[in-house]
Amino acid sequence: MIPAKAYAALDEKSPLQPYSFERRSIGSHDVQVKILFCGVCHSDIHQARNEWGGSIYPMVPGHEIIGEVLATGSEVSKFAIGDLVGVGVMVDSCGTCKNCSRDMEQYCEEGMTGTYNAIERDGKTIAQGGYSSVIVVKEHYVLSISRKLDPAAAAPLLCAGITTYSPLKFANVQPGQKVAVVGLGGLGHMGVKFAVSFGADVTVISTSPSKEADAVRLGAHHFLLSTDKEAMKKHNSHFDVILDTVSADHDYTEYLDLLDLEGKLLIVGLPSKEPSLSPFSLITKRRSIIGSMIGGINETQEMLDYCADKNIVSDVEVIPMQYINEAYERMVRSDVKYRFVIDLSTL
Amino acid sequence: MIPAKAYAALDEKSPLQPYSFERRSIGSHDVQVKILFCGVCHSDIHQARNEWGGSIYPMVPGHEIIGEVLATGSEVSKFAIGDLVGVGVMVDSCGTCKNCSRDMEQYCEEGMTGTYNAIERDGKTIAQGGYSSVIVVKEHYVLSISRKLDPAAAAPLLCAGITTYSPLKFANVQPGQKVAVVGLGGLGHMGVKFAVSFGADVTVISTSPSKEADAVRLGAHHFLLSTDKEAMKKHNSHFDVILDTVSADHDYTEYLDLLDLEGKLLIVGLPSKEPSLSPFSLITKRRSIIGSMIGGINETQEMLDYCADKNIVSDVEVIPMQYINEAYERMVRSDVKYRFVIDLSTL
Repeated sequence: MIPAKAYAALDEKSPLQPYSFERRSIGSHDVQVKILFCGVCHSDIHQARNEWGGSIYPMVPGHEIIGEVLATGSEVSKFAIGDLVGVGVMVDSCGTCKNCSRDMEQYCEEGMTGTYNAIERDGKTIAQGGYSSVIVVKEHYVLSISRKLDPAAAAPLLCAGITTYSPLKFANVQPGQKVAVVGLGGLGHMGVKFAVSFGADVTVISTSPSKEADAVRLGAHHFLLSTDKEAMKKHNSHFDVILDTVSADHDYTEYLDLLDLEGKLLIVGLPSKEPSLSPFSLITKRRSIIGSMIGGINETQEMLDYCADKNIVSDVEVIPMQYINEAYERMVRSDVKYRFVIDLSTL
Repeated sequence: MIPAKAYAALDEKSPLQPYSFERRSIGSHDVQVKILFCGVCHSDIHQARNEWGGSIYPMVPGHEIIGEVLATGSEVSKFAIGDLVGVGVMVDSCGTCKNCSRDMEQYCEEGMTGTYNAIERDGKTIAQGGYSSVIVVKEHYVLSISRKLDPAAAAPLLCAGITTYSPLKFANVQPGQKVAVVGLGGLGHMGVKFAVSFGADVTVISTSPSKEADAVRLGAHHFLLSTDKEAMKKHNSHFDVILDTVSADHDYTEYLDLLDLEGKLLIVGLPSKEPSLSPFSLITKRRSIIGSMIGGINETQEMLDYCADKNIVSDVEVIPMQYINEAYERMVRSDVKYRFVIDLSTL
């Protein structure tokens, strides 16, 4: 077994605290990774605090992992010691169902195995995430990271990056298309970067006028204040694609109405109250609503290679491990531009 | 002007009654049609009774029209006197916007002109529908009907037919795909016939066990009772496409959950209460919800030609004009298999 230092939630009420545990010894297809950086995703908070129910404790959160290969199993062919690698939201899946066979392990019919807050496929080990010194992961679920990228700023690509890249690709966003991104947070700011890089004409839609300057800095061409009913009305039937990254409770009709003929509303956020929508708005322009969840391993590698090519990373604030509880409080207040990333050397 | 006999709603409370009015004289691009049959769509009742608001009276309902060409304008080239023709849900549109230019006049940016309960593009004439002896329509909005088809049974193709054909084609239904049709009424029974004709494995989903025998008679391969929670659960992630024809209030999550990876929930009904849906259900299988409204003129002609080729028509109960108010009452009770069609020779 491999000793690991970490920060963990021991129950849903307590702040995260130092925690020691053991990773499995590396098997023939495993890669042992020394964790350098780990992004802090809003879902880390939801799960640490059991806000979605069913949380498993002790819980070491973190699924935006960047590290260096320390050791490899005898059958590992893709990686060598010293390689810069990433681990995202999943560390396993059945590998044989029709969705896994189509490189969409995130939609595995048996359910993908999450990087943390999950039971591994041995049926007993609690999967533990990236707020830790080391992780052991099956080769197939390890991604290659280019040395061209700043490793701290690349960490959020493993969740926020692929979560926004995948639906924009699925919607087949083309140069010149009008794309809106709703919500400028960890997900939204990556959505803007990708949509701009695809050559789209990009609008940020936000409830907060203070986001306009940043939207422009990130490359967006327009800003639309969603509380300005007159401006919203002017954008009726305007967009080809809208990427809705908001997890706060909201209905879909307001954004559906902004879509042109056959426009697509891409949903990646998870409001806790079920949104309603106007069937009239859907029907009168053949609009659609499409859900999307992270991306498959092949697509994640494609996204990482694309980011290396285009020099796309996340805007991050690097923090020491000890700052995590304060970081959580600031995230709840949306006081981060746009992702905290833990420097694990501080552990 | 051309005298027309008809049945009309004079206000939202009164039963339909005999009514006389005048159609415009035929212009150079117009076709004058002697109406033989007209289907009775549930939207006729909603509009006659002002249940959607904004109704224009006097109102001659009816937008599933089959007739014979009586006369043609000087520039008309597609039709000759005596031809069997159809008129559907729209009789005009701007003809020049990008949606009209893509043969999707139903999504005209200026708004299509409905066959009734609408103001024609002269800005003053009330468009009057098919519960009448004669109609004058621009050539472009007139469809050609094959003599191979029973003209009474073909009438509902103009609305119920195209409303279900278009989304199934848009969803690219393929042989062997698992397709469910929710609701076995005027729309649903046409959806079953089309999906079966496309080679799909078709299931009817209904709240009513009494629909099973008919579902099978119409060609469906399976029947799923939506009130049987155990059976519904067994069909989780089962279907590739679900055509939801229900206009009664309902949420979408129950049907979304039945869709497999990248499955499509096609919406053609208009519940009055906004449906809610689970974003979790959307996201975890990359499912989508797609709205659709009738079809363009070219696509309607394609559907009619397809029906002539495959001998697809609606199941109808032909009624005299004088029976219309009783027919409305029976439709409200879902007591029709599956479409009333008025024989206008009884007028």
